[in-house]
Amino acid sequence: MSQIFKSHLEKFITINDEEFEKILSFFEVKTFAKKEDLLKEGQVCRHNYFVLKGLLRKFFITEKGTEQTTEFAIETWWMTDNISYEHKTPSEFYIQTVEKSELLVISCDAQEQLLEEFPVMEKYFRIIYQRAFAASQNRVKYIFSFSKEDFYLQLLQKQPAFVQRVPQYLIASFLGFTPEYLSELRKKIVS
Amino acid sequence: MSQIFKSHLEKFITINDEEFEKILSFFEVKTFAKKEDLLKEGQVCRHNYFVLKGLLRKFFITEKGTEQTTEFAIETWWMTDNISYEHKTPSEFYIQTVEKSELLVISCDAQEQLLEEFPVMEKYFRIIYQRAFAASQNRVKYIFSFSKEDFYLQLLQKQPAFVQRVPQYLIASFLGFTPEYLSELRKKIVS
Repeated sequence: MSQIFKSHLEKFITINDEEFEKILSFFEVKTFAKKEDLLKEGQVCRHNYFVLKGLLRKFFITEKGTEQTTEFAIETWWMTDNISYEHKTPSEFYIQTVEKSELLVISCDAQEQLLEEFPVMEKYFRIIYQRAFAASQNRVKYIFSFSKEDFYLQLLQKQPAFVQRVPQYLIASFLGFTPEYLSELRKKIVS
Repeated sequence: MSQIFKSHLEKFITINDEEFEKILSFFEVKTFAKKEDLLKEGQVCRHNYFVLKGLLRKFFITEKGTEQTTEFAIETWWMTDNISYEHKTPSEFYIQTVEKSELLVISCDAQEQLLEEFPVMEKYFRIIYQRAFAASQNRVKYIFSFSKEDFYLQLLQKQPAFVQRVPQYLIASFLGFTPEYLSELRKKIVS
């Protein structure tokens, strides 16, 4: 399973087998059941998660008491609450498995040490954060520029496998509308 | 003026004077007038900008023809359209000076070369992108969790100097409401 991580790293940096084994030793491989909480609001987020297999989501509880999903992470994606993780402050988010998931887990201190001992990982994480930031900038643009309907159509067109894989009520939670509205919308598209 | 950049870098990495001069040689110092376009929609974004003095904003034109501001950059902040910059694709954004601005300007190729010759800059940019991503994640949360009114109050409370400095119609453009609505809101807050 760790081969997934090695192949992923090799897209960005050059490392040999020995280096990879040492890098891997900074992580724990953990398996989580479906709908398991990795982080709850109010806790300090002490880990960064890399998805080997499965699906995670990040959400917060709105004032109205609904779950607003802000991010998903599938295979080879990272997930943490960066602010809580870096500043060791209580998180405003939940991180939860959507499917049974196998993850590489690293603590903030271990990640710092990894970066110190393997400066090549600075390059790797620079590229990862650069892309995550770019994707997040686009997300903000989409939120402002699309109607709810167009937002869904856009997702359906660009990420059909993803829409198929994720339960519909979570797609609704990500797009910021009710499951009922999404259900109506899907009927309208089919007809 | 370049001392601002050196002091900023030294918050994150250790470099000596000679290294700094070499790093600086990858950049051009340029001055731009107020309301000058650094990037227009449809152009490939070929530069990354570091603000030595002044204020930039990034925006896009909505379907309704209004300017939706998505980001500001003040002194020691970076700004580019990361997707266009990295993938050399036409941008969907504008980048414009809000005030007369003095900027450090670097091209994508020069930045790649800088990272190759000075791996310590990988660490610097890793931290910069990591923080930018974290801020962007919070932005998404704010968009979903606050009413327009609360969004403004939040900004006023957390960034009073910023609200003072930026023209009100741009604050409105950032928060996604009309200048008229903001004007009403300000009267309501004062009374």
